[in-house]
Amino acid sequence: MGSIPTERRKTRVLVFGSGGVGTMAAYALEDGGKAEVTAVLRSNFKEVLESGFTINSVDHGLIQSWSPSHIRNAMLNAESNSDPQPYDFIVVATKNLPDIPPDVASLIAPDVTPGTTAIALLQNGLNIQRPIIKAFPHNPVISGVPYIGAIEGPPGTINHVNHDRLIISPFYNGNIPREDSEGAARQFQRIYASCPNVTCIYEPRVEEARWRKLLYNASYNPIATLLRMDTSRMRASEFIIDELVRPAMKEIQATAREVSKVYLSDELIETIIRADNYKAFFRPSMLQDIIKGKLLELENIIGEPVREAQKAGVDTPTLKVLYSLLKGLQFQIKEAQGHLRVPESDEGLKYGMKQEGPDAKMERMEE
Amino acid sequence: MGSIPTERRKTRVLVFGSGGVGTMAAYALEDGGKAEVTAVLRSNFKEVLESGFTINSVDHGLIQSWSPSHIRNAMLNAESNSDPQPYDFIVVATKNLPDIPPDVASLIAPDVTPGTTAIALLQNGLNIQRPIIKAFPHNPVISGVPYIGAIEGPPGTINHVNHDRLIISPFYNGNIPREDSEGAARQFQRIYASCPNVTCIYEPRVEEARWRKLLYNASYNPIATLLRMDTSRMRASEFIIDELVRPAMKEIQATAREVSKVYLSDELIETIIRADNYKAFFRPSMLQDIIKGKLLELENIIGEPVREAQKAGVDTPTLKVLYSLLKGLQFQIKEAQGHLRVPESDEGLKYGMKQEGPDAKMERMEE
Repeated sequence: MGSIPTERRKTRVLVFGSGGVGTMAAYALEDGGKAEVTAVLRSNFKEVLESGFTINSVDHGLIQSWSPSHIRNAMLNAESNSDPQPYDFIVVATKNLPDIPPDVASLIAPDVTPGTTAIALLQNGLNIQRPIIKAFPHNPVISGVPYIGAIEGPPGTINHVNHDRLIISPFYNGNIPREDSEGAARQFQRIYASCPNVTCIYEPRVEEARWRKLLYNASYNPIATLLRMDTSRMRASEFIIDELVRPAMKEIQATAREVSKVYLSDELIETIIRADNYKAFFRPSMLQDIIKGKLLELENIIGEPVREAQKAGVDTPTLKVLYSLLKGLQFQIKEAQGHLRVPESDEGLKYGMKQEGPDAKMERMEE
Repeated sequence: MGSIPTERRKTRVLVFGSGGVGTMAAYALEDGGKAEVTAVLRSNFKEVLESGFTINSVDHGLIQSWSPSHIRNAMLNAESNSDPQPYDFIVVATKNLPDIPPDVASLIAPDVTPGTTAIALLQNGLNIQRPIIKAFPHNPVISGVPYIGAIEGPPGTINHVNHDRLIISPFYNGNIPREDSEGAARQFQRIYASCPNVTCIYEPRVEEARWRKLLYNASYNPIATLLRMDTSRMRASEFIIDELVRPAMKEIQATAREVSKVYLSDELIETIIRADNYKAFFRPSMLQDIIKGKLLELENIIGEPVREAQKAGVDTPTLKVLYSLLKGLQFQIKEAQGHLRVPESDEGLKYGMKQEGPDAKMERMEE
């Protein structure tokens, strides 16, 4: 495995996504001393090139004009092919938007050396590994479940408010030996954990870590987004927890058990319901996205759990309605961003006007 | 029944609510020549007192500085007791907000002459008659289901865009003879229908008219409100109709059949799905309310159908989630209007912070 570096050189890591999660990962990896990081920057390339990152971190303190070993402009991505040396790891910390091109696989393809580069997905949700394994069947794929409150403010400025805790697991893949998948995951965990100020844990069972985080992400995130409401107000109302949040969590619990033999306890559900700091009136990431008019990361966070439940015959009435409503919000964000166009006339639409008989007229509904 | 007037005088009608529905009702009643209307005005009293209503109506044309026979300031309502003559009819065209005081019954109480005044509820939703019959057990109560696109713009200015079609039925009440309930309803229908430009129909089966309108109001209204989306975009998306609107309508259909033996056809559902004029990109009333930060009329439109379904053992998974989400929106509107206060600390809250063991800490969910 080329992903095991010789003693002579540092591990070569390419980081995609330079928002909160990606930048803090790049920092931890370099701070640990075992990695040489190249960060691929998109929206903030110009600012970081000129004056580096400004990081205000609960773990690392205030860090000014910091840059990883190398930065690269995402817009010139194709040129990376000219780089002779392969990357040992590619860290993907972008938002996961399979419903909007380009997908993650085509984004990283120019930098993946077949059979060599291990791909670490520091992203939320279910089945994120599938398109990656399909595109790179002979490369190890690693799961990273991040617990880190890190948000980019102005371009190049990161505010990191909660301790960086990263849970690493292997995504197994029939095309390569299990020990190679495990070896790559363990090596990445060691490199990341060698930064003294962060917590990076290896968990053999990837499904457990992913379903556990979905308890929160598939319930509080969609409901907060639809209501444009912080999680403390939801708890103060009580009925939002009793009628929406807990039922959604119980449906994730039932689906995890049926689909992945992962057993999430009722006690864990009650703990997660109360996990946010009440006084912070916290707005989950998806709510922050819709307020900014950004696309919602909904397919892997709620779409895949709903589809897996359906296949397994698990009833998820709450999640299904929440998912369809979120798709309705996404539809409008896509329209606003020009990804789709709504016709001004209903000609040829599936739900265009009917030929109007008197009955149809009688049922005009405007109040 | 005192609600049957002598030939010598016009029928005395008091109209509560001077928005679109109430003002157009007041106009039709006076225009028909058989009624002498007193309108109780709240937000627009000053404007109407000074310069009357300005009405731009699809049925009546442009009408300027119009007033009913009498107007009264809602703020001085108690004084109405001094009026010696009883009202034959009270028309209630206010929004129905049982979750916010004052309720309709206490609003109209000073003007109801026991055993005499008939109360016509020109409001949407289910079970709106129950608190009225409870408060006035010996007065006839009349159902009015309005189909009229009439909205108040600036105070005293009404824009009326769809033909006024009003469906009148009796609400039966064990305390008074059925023929009295029917007589009062038929008399009101005659008085209203004597205006040549409107359509006012008598239907003996009140449940049918109410459930039929709920097909639209319990589906398009809540979904448009949660998505802040017009009904044409919903139809253009297709999946919003297939996954949310039609399922909600089918649940109303099933509940109407089980609870009221009212049979609403699938063909009617498909007609109502396409009923709005696509090119108008229509925003249902509840969506217009949330955009303006006004309280939502949700209890009788979706709360009661959900509760009736639950009692009857009808499964309404879509309506239940939509209802709970709408209550979450209403919670925030109530807070904004000062009807409730959200505590800054979680002390003593049902969903306050748990004593934190390491486990709880481990599950902090902020991303």
